[in-house]
Amino acid sequence: MSDAAVSRRRARVRAGILVTGTEVLNGIIADRNGPWLSERLRELGVDAATIQVVGDRPDDLRGALSHMMADGYRLIVTSGGLGPTADDLTAQIVGELTRRPLVLDGELEREIARILRPLLERTPELDRDALLAANRKQAVIPEGAVVLQPVGTAPGLILSPRDESAPTFVVLPGPPRELQPMWRAAVETPALRAAIAGAATFHHATLRLFGIPESEIAETLRRADAAGIELGQLEITTCLRRGEIEVATRYEPEASPAYEALVAFIERRHPHALFSRDGATIDEQVAALLAGERIATGESCTGGMLAARLTDRPGASSYVAGGVVAYSNEAKTALLDVDPQLIAAEGAVSGAVARALAQGARNRFGASVGVGITGVAGPGGGSEAKPVGTVCFCVSGPGELTLTRTARLPGAREDIRDRSCTVALHLIARFLRGEHD
Amino acid sequence: MSDAAVSRRRARVRAGILVTGTEVLNGIIADRNGPWLSERLRELGVDAATIQVVGDRPDDLRGALSHMMADGYRLIVTSGGLGPTADDLTAQIVGELTRRPLVLDGELEREIARILRPLLERTPELDRDALLAANRKQAVIPEGAVVLQPVGTAPGLILSPRDESAPTFVVLPGPPRELQPMWRAAVETPALRAAIAGAATFHHATLRLFGIPESEIAETLRRADAAGIELGQLEITTCLRRGEIEVATRYEPEASPAYEALVAFIERRHPHALFSRDGATIDEQVAALLAGERIATGESCTGGMLAARLTDRPGASSYVAGGVVAYSNEAKTALLDVDPQLIAAEGAVSGAVARALAQGARNRFGASVGVGITGVAGPGGGSEAKPVGTVCFCVSGPGELTLTRTARLPGAREDIRDRSCTVALHLIARFLRGEHD
Repeated sequence: MSDAAVSRRRARVRAGILVTGTEVLNGIIADRNGPWLSERLRELGVDAATIQVVGDRPDDLRGALSHMMADGYRLIVTSGGLGPTADDLTAQIVGELTRRPLVLDGELEREIARILRPLLERTPELDRDALLAANRKQAVIPEGAVVLQPVGTAPGLILSPRDESAPTFVVLPGPPRELQPMWRAAVETPALRAAIAGAATFHHATLRLFGIPESEIAETLRRADAAGIELGQLEITTCLRRGEIEVATRYEPEASPAYEALVAFIERRHPHALFSRDGATIDEQVAALLAGERIATGESCTGGMLAARLTDRPGASSYVAGGVVAYSNEAKTALLDVDPQLIAAEGAVSGAVARALAQGARNRFGASVGVGITGVAGPGGGSEAKPVGTVCFCVSGPGELTLTRTARLPGAREDIRDRSCTVALHLIARFLRGEHD
Repeated sequence: MSDAAVSRRRARVRAGILVTGTEVLNGIIADRNGPWLSERLRELGVDAATIQVVGDRPDDLRGALSHMMADGYRLIVTSGGLGPTADDLTAQIVGELTRRPLVLDGELEREIARILRPLLERTPELDRDALLAANRKQAVIPEGAVVLQPVGTAPGLILSPRDESAPTFVVLPGPPRELQPMWRAAVETPALRAAIAGAATFHHATLRLFGIPESEIAETLRRADAAGIELGQLEITTCLRRGEIEVATRYEPEASPAYEALVAFIERRHPHALFSRDGATIDEQVAALLAGERIATGESCTGGMLAARLTDRPGASSYVAGGVVAYSNEAKTALLDVDPQLIAAEGAVSGAVARALAQGARNRFGASVGVGITGVAGPGGGSEAKPVGTVCFCVSGPGELTLTRTARLPGAREDIRDRSCTVALHLIARFLRGEHD
């Protein structure tokens, strides 16, 4: 067995993630904790083997945890069920399964009381004794547990195993804004460090491509393999996200040459499509390219989504002047000076009107860069010549420079609108890097 | 035991949902199938007891399914792992666990070949034999399985148990656009009907409230219980979603009087906050109220998100005239006629400027209703008087009528922007129902 193979075997520290909550199980709210914890574990070299969601029923919680213990994971991370009410049972059940009696942690009880004091002072009508009794419950923990300080009122817990074959439990509260800082604190504890000792250190790298179908990247990987690049040393996940292809790779430091060879191979086959070698998103790239510029938008079918996406980022006010949503033809003329005869001659969905929207936005806002989008988002409004999904784009800048494109985008109304914004961002980036009509 | 109690016990048909896919497990793409299936099962009176995600490793898939079989669920629904590649193993493992030999279904093989023909004709460079061989794999299924016709190229399967104690398996492909129609087809089959026979028929109803904290609705439920409303007959789930409270209730037909009493109780305690008794969202209500009107927006901190949300709905062009994103003060003046002296006197974030934005949008677009939003979305830009989260709103209409409000919204930049749109929609609805300053 080669050293590399030994090292790869060492990497297989596996974990189970258990998410509790009836709202999550019933599909009423989306689980954000499972995927978030899975990503954080991956960064530490630990593989999440499963993410399991159960409701607040004690039997289901007990059953799921028992199965995970039987499956031999080194680490079990739970979220939820640490609140003050009777159906918050995680600490109790984990104590039972690890055969630890429950004890009142006096210091923790005082800490929770301290946290509750401002609430009690603000709202004197609350029943003080009932509140303190309910929160005393949160200070009752399995004996020997390491306490993670509350971010809300619920403490987190780490339970180290008494023998090597048993897992370490990390017990976290459900609200993501409590869970996330508490996980970061957990990672710093000797108890968690011991649990994941031996996990390999991984590098993570992400490439992003735009303008090719997902099947193309699958073919590229096959060819890279055939060309002798050692893909076996790389854990590659590809996925299509908002019309872009993301190639996320995890590898051990020794595999860096293989990863670099793969990047060079992809670069040769897709020089135009590969727009990010460092994982930066197109939104981040456009924000950087707009430094010193002022941008304005003239949107029809996207109805403000591009302006909203440009202003998502803090500090956007330094480069976003504003935008006009010109849904009707009258608005295109009144607010962005689009010639009504041009609309009549070319149609509202045309490259010429996209150009006029871009130039109108640029002029009206006194911006250096203008963007125009006009298209058929559907479900109605399509024609044989301009079916649903036809979207025209233009980016315009000083000196009459423009970059104009027409795309046929797949999917339903919301997909077409969202994808249009992605296409527009790529055109803005290409324009600012010097690509013109 | 009363009849109602018997009926409630009959209702407990339980199911497990297994989602396979390494991208989902790694947090790269969000699982849409688990929550979707859980909601569909609930509609049929079946409780999803767990949603479990595993990667494409056969041992993990086998382990998770074995645990679910041991847990005694009546139904196990899987998504994913039905593709043509070697790591698509769900059908094989389900066959193994139910002790059914795998057989080639000749009819299904011809059906898949028929589906692939147009692809082969479009792309003659594809290796025809390799493609057909890979897809023959998809026609190899456990003996006796009911085939659900492919929506893509992967068929779904239903495996009925050979004895009463074993579960029925429904095996579905991973892509939601294939899984969803195939699930609907599965529901129509005698095999699935038999599996869920005895599940109670439930009514589902949703109330929506706006403007009260979630703790208030918890208190209301406690009081309803104390007032003798039979909450034990109702399965109530409350959740906070985009700043609104959703109260989703499932109940058997006999419990209708209890549900009606609850609705009346909530109505009395929260007459202003309860805005939807039929589950309609505020977006749906605003769209209906805007029939015959034309609306225009003047947005600052939301940067186009309100216009984008108003135009999300098909047919929005009949009532959305357009909008201006006036991020800079100059743009507020140049495009929406906001008096620069007003901005200097009151500040850009003020009720007066929100009113000027609304009126400017209404005038410039010739609309009947105008909406203005200006606020501090953060993270920078806050002051002691106007901290991050301060957002001013105005809706204006004919005859100088206005509805102006200032809110302090919690959370980070994206929460504040998103919540601002929700507040604006509620103000639009209240304005159109006759509430004015």
